[in-house]
Amino acid sequence: MLTIYSYWRSSAAYRVRIALNLKGLAYQQVPVHLVKDGGQQHSADYLALNPQGLLPLLVDEDNDGVRIAQSLAILEYLDEVFPVPTLLPADPAQRAQVRALALHIACDIHPLNNLRVLQYLSTELGASDEAKSTWYRHWVDKGLAAVEQGLAVFDGRLSLGERPGYLEACLIPQLYNARRFECDLNGYPRILAIAARCEVLEAFKNAAPEVQPDAQ
Amino acid sequence: MLTIYSYWRSSAAYRVRIALNLKGLAYQQVPVHLVKDGGQQHSADYLALNPQGLLPLLVDEDNDGVRIAQSLAILEYLDEVFPVPTLLPADPAQRAQVRALALHIACDIHPLNNLRVLQYLSTELGASDEAKSTWYRHWVDKGLAAVEQGLAVFDGRLSLGERPGYLEACLIPQLYNARRFECDLNGYPRILAIAARCEVLEAFKNAAPEVQPDAQ
Repeated sequence: MLTIYSYWRSSAAYRVRIALNLKGLAYQQVPVHLVKDGGQQHSADYLALNPQGLLPLLVDEDNDGVRIAQSLAILEYLDEVFPVPTLLPADPAQRAQVRALALHIACDIHPLNNLRVLQYLSTELGASDEAKSTWYRHWVDKGLAAVEQGLAVFDGRLSLGERPGYLEACLIPQLYNARRFECDLNGYPRILAIAARCEVLEAFKNAAPEVQPDAQ
Repeated sequence: MLTIYSYWRSSAAYRVRIALNLKGLAYQQVPVHLVKDGGQQHSADYLALNPQGLLPLLVDEDNDGVRIAQSLAILEYLDEVFPVPTLLPADPAQRAQVRALALHIACDIHPLNNLRVLQYLSTELGASDEAKSTWYRHWVDKGLAAVEQGLAVFDGRLSLGERPGYLEACLIPQLYNARRFECDLNGYPRILAIAARCEVLEAFKNAAPEVQPDAQ
């Protein structure tokens, strides 16, 4: 049995739900509320499972109960242990292109706009809500513009040709965040075209934040 | 021929130099100065090579000149194309543990303390030098504390038993940054023990920022 500790609106958890669904793997979710109780991810119980104190966490009971933090490490694990259907292309250069775009999202957009960072901006640096929104959109704009350019190598295809995988599992949650914060997406036709193809698929629909059991 | 576009003090480039050295691969470096000329990574010439506008970039002339951004994508590529000696363990669960710790550094410490973010804090949010240093140390402290806990699974060994690899290639540059910003490292005996074992090795010595051709 696979279990993920997750929060409905965590975009890193959203990535993992998409990947699990694309592979047709059954899983259960344990909700960890990022705000309630001062953030349940900071609780002693959760830190004992994942000292990083972030979501998601995958537990694979069928593999000695191994606990894996970090969404991209989870995606790689799933692709190694449950290889069909694949999340990554077979060719090393193509795998690298996919990973580089996914890492750009996971390293250079998302962490800057994570809840804990936005909280620091207001509590420690006295940033106003407006300054925080500007910060948020700044990193989304810079990041998505680079992703849009980088997608040129796929020439209108999905990252696995006709199938989505690792890249789309990272891109769609980032796009969800961008829409939530009302970022202007008109400059990103390649991203929007990929989103249109993914968002009609069950794997993506069933991973969407709003349909999770802990959605509010 | 392998070429990296790099900057001596970029810790992401430092990771890649360590990995190349651990594999005994020859490479040339093209310096991209992160401050001079308003940041050469923003130049049209560099953006044409890497639209992400960040360092490092690997170019593999022997593989159709493929260009790979993002240090962790480069490490994965090197381990796939030049598999001996390995950077990652063979077992999927162990690979996942290594990647999760490396990603914690690469996603949840480093990007928050990147030059472009520190610049934004001062120019857009009016943060003082002191406030920026506090910010820097805050994310290093939180991050390294989690890494220190996560290292318990290695029980005093390096990530490949007696050999360093992917994990150490990420950890040592982060430690370099932490020392540069005078973070208190006394709470991290596991990290310091790993560093002591790595820093005497040629692969790490030759990757150090101060011995790079563009060091100032």
